[in-house]
Amino acid sequence: MLTLILGGARSGKSRHAETLVAAHPAPWLYVATAAAGDAEMAARIAAHQARRGEGWRTREVPLDLPAALAEPHPALVDCLTLWLANLMAAERDIPAATAALETALRARTAPTVLVSNEVGLGIVPDNALARAFRDEAGRLHQALAVRAERVLFMVAGLAMVVKG
Amino acid sequence: MLTLILGGARSGKSRHAETLVAAHPAPWLYVATAAAGDAEMAARIAAHQARRGEGWRTREVPLDLPAALAEPHPALVDCLTLWLANLMAAERDIPAATAALETALRARTAPTVLVSNEVGLGIVPDNALARAFRDEAGRLHQALAVRAERVLFMVAGLAMVVKG
Amino acid sequence: MLTLILGGARSGKSRHAETLVAAHPAPWLYVATAAAGDAEMAARIAAHQARRGEGWRTREVPLDLPAALAEPHPALVDCLTLWLANLMAAERDIPAATAALETALRARTAPTVLVSNEVGLGIVPDNALARAFRDEAGRLHQALAVRAERVLFMVAGLAMVVKG
Repeated sequence: MLTLILGGARSGKSRHAETLVAAHPAPWLYVATAAAGDAEMAARIAAHQARRGEGWRTREVPLDLPAALAEPHPALVDCLTLWLANLMAAERDIPAATAALETALRARTAPTVLVSNEVGLGIVPDNALARAFRDEAGRLHQALAVRAERVLFMVAGLAMVVKG
Repeated sequence: MLTLILGGARSGKSRHAETLVAAHPAPWLYVATAAAGDAEMAARIAAHQARRGEGWRTREVPLDLPAALAEPHPALVDCLTLWLANLMAAERDIPAATAALETALRARTAPTVLVSNEVGLGIVPDNALARAFRDEAGRLHQALAVRAERVLFMVAGLAMVVKG
Repeated sequence: MLTLILGGARSGKSRHAETLVAAHPAPWLYVATAAAGDAEMAARIAAHQARRGEGWRTREVPLDLPAALAEPHPALVDCLTLWLANLMAAERDIPAATAALETALRARTAPTVLVSNEVGLGIVPDNALARAFRDEAGRLHQALAVRAERVLFMVAGLAMVVKG
């Protein structure tokens, strides 16, 4: 069972994802794509860890997300947009990385919940990199939504069912 | 009955809120959080007032929203994001203000419709203040959505039911 | 039958619109509002054309969208936000252009699918022109959503039904 959770900033994506994953037997994987490089991000990761209880095993994978999904436990990936940003910063091949992620997801038997930010609903950004980023994010979301059994769009902490 | 109406710019939030409030017996409170400080905002307020008919009593409360809700009439609060921006500009304690709002809402017996802008679905803003603002807005929306009997997401003047 | 398809960047609006139009007998009109002025836009138009198969007749109308809709075939308009940007750049009268579009749509008997970008769900833009643009886009969407038999909001390539 693959679930894709999309939504804006502070829309309750992570919390909802944790609830979905923790409905299955522990242990659970928390696959964090954040590189705790700056203070703001470190604070977010700490808040996430404080909120999650026992039973979670954290894996920090800024780039090699597919490998982390080989472990046979229910998994929460938080989040895909950050992974994408890391890939772009490292000048990796995005279509190849997306294909590797899809292969890793196909091989999984445990439940998987993917969290990602919807970033394409504002004014077109001035700079080309930001435009490229939201295009890549949209393409990634579409590719995963086709494969997912369930797609949710979070609004104010509430889940709207887009698929499933 | 508490209703939370979220949506983007010019998505028909205020108009829909007016219809919901005016379905109850007059008088109705129009609780405006705008400080008509600049011409653009003054024009918006004037347009709103021209559209609303008889029966509405306007209360302008850039900061003290909870006190305005003590009046025992059906009320439209327009809008929470502006109230939040005013609180941040005045360096008020946001969690305390949110708690005071929730207390005021709990004490109400007349129908209440809260309008707020969803601002978190674009590219991550460059400046830290804008990022902090959308985080606070998201937190506020989540806190109120839990309490609300009905949550609507407006698209092109049409209401999608998120809750209720 | 008038369909309005809204959504963010790379949300699958155009592809879904093509499927809806191509469900009717060919020929189909592809009414492109893009002026292929810059390389980025030219690449997008080329990608669209490569994806569409036989049976499509392309009409490039940066400004005179209503006239293009006089042809009595199923039509896809891609997209309204670009048309609006072109109108604003040419300093045309937006309410008059909107009214002319509505008149042209009323006169049509063949199915019509309008694609447009939702741009109002991010942080309020710094510059006044961007704010004016998203206000105009919101007004245009509301006017067309009233008239449309079907309004869809695209998320990750999937259509959420807002109306119809």
